[in-house]
Amino acid sequence: MAAIPQAHGAVAVDVGLQLAVENLLARYAHALDDDRLEEWPDFFVEQGRYRITTAENHARNLPLPIIYADSRAMLRDRVSALRHANIYEAQRYRHIVSSVLVERLDPQTVRAASNFQVTRIMRTGESTLFASGRYLDRIRMDPAGARFEERIVVLDSRAVDTLLAIPI
Amino acid sequence: MAAIPQAHGAVAVDVGLQLAVENLLARYAHALDDDRLEEWPDFFVEQGRYRITTAENHARNLPLPIIYADSRAMLRDRVSALRHANIYEAQRYRHIVSSVLVERLDPQTVRAASNFQVTRIMRTGESTLFASGRYLDRIRMDPAGARFEERIVVLDSRAVDTLLAIPI
Amino acid sequence: MAAIPQAHGAVAVDVGLQLAVENLLARYAHALDDDRLEEWPDFFVEQGRYRITTAENHARNLPLPIIYADSRAMLRDRVSALRHANIYEAQRYRHIVSSVLVERLDPQTVRAASNFQVTRIMRTGESTLFASGRYLDRIRMDPAGARFEERIVVLDSRAVDTLLAIPI
Repeated sequence: MAAIPQAHGAVAVDVGLQLAVENLLARYAHALDDDRLEEWPDFFVEQGRYRITTAENHARNLPLPIIYADSRAMLRDRVSALRHANIYEAQRYRHIVSSVLVERLDPQTVRAASNFQVTRIMRTGESTLFASGRYLDRIRMDPAGARFEERIVVLDSRAVDTLLAIPI
Repeated sequence: MAAIPQAHGAVAVDVGLQLAVENLLARYAHALDDDRLEEWPDFFVEQGRYRITTAENHARNLPLPIIYADSRAMLRDRVSALRHANIYEAQRYRHIVSSVLVERLDPQTVRAASNFQVTRIMRTGESTLFASGRYLDRIRMDPAGARFEERIVVLDSRAVDTLLAIPI
Repeated sequence: MAAIPQAHGAVAVDVGLQLAVENLLARYAHALDDDRLEEWPDFFVEQGRYRITTAENHARNLPLPIIYADSRAMLRDRVSALRHANIYEAQRYRHIVSSVLVERLDPQTVRAASNFQVTRIMRTGESTLFASGRYLDRIRMDPAGARFEERIVVLDSRAVDTLLAIPI
């Protein structure tokens, strides 16, 4: 499980790595916010894991994620289901992501922690603060680009909306 | 029209360029949030274009921006009008900007896409999530500094407040 | 008092410095959001100053901060008090920080300005936009790491919650 990098004391930020990770996080956010859902699985490696859970469950290490997928194929299935259910049409998201901490684990792998906030915009025009929390990521950096080996979405609130079938 | 950079696959972030763009976006946000409206036109080139539109209009390519200006002179006129109307006094903004994607078009020009959220704080102390959306920018990088050739503000919601005469 | 860096005109961002400051701000946000309050004083130099004030008081230069501390010892006392009062248990914060402007004052000191927004999540699951504003920082950069000499939290709204004894 990804933990938050604790880079206390001396700070030597790896500039290229930091910005490569921030770039991945930004592209991911724009893909979802632009309703380019079909691109979502491609942000993960083939056996990539995606999980939405709550801060409470995460702290207790409870194996009850709200959403769980452990391959690109499962992510693609979810996209198909969403397109078929047509729920996504009725709303849009806007992601704000900040405070990205990056730590290299080995030459090809980093972990990252970041904060997010998602605004949901309904077709009626109504906007609400939909979700906040943090991303805990394990990312593979290779010449083909940076991709998620694991992305854990830890929601701050357990007041989880049923519409949460949509990726964050 | 500016489109969102799609830097899939191999990622090679131009570190200096990325941070120069983020710096421009940050200075712009602080100028508006500090009520330094008179500086606003100077973030644009002389024939700079500024437009506020909605996601709906933008997607349909409808030529119905909420605000449109295509020169620094027009932006200055707007500032004068706002100062005269004195609306701005009654409220403040706080911009949050994230997920900045940058793509070089030619040696002197880049386009950028970013997400924003604006909180509006009324004189009474009341705060609300006022607007969210994305900036689609075309930026000229030259020795005199980075300036907007075009800044399109695409609001997520069409529930647009009449007070929106104030720049975002 | 820290002022906002005004880097108009030519922009030459010091990449390493910019990211070192952003890293400090990110670690600070994660420490508070993760309820690692005991680490909070260590983000400051020994004689570090911390102040929460409102935009109104700050603009008028009124010496009426909501919270004031001018040493790590005072910050530690505050943490002890909070732990004893047990208020913090009932809520969590989520910080979003953006638009970080950095200016070097001398080889070891920088000032920075940034925008923030804090979401508060109650135990019941309810989330609200709790506070927005800007950080005005004076930061010492030395081999032991970056630390705050001064962190002024300027809240946008004077509608200040009594629970604000908790650091932002």
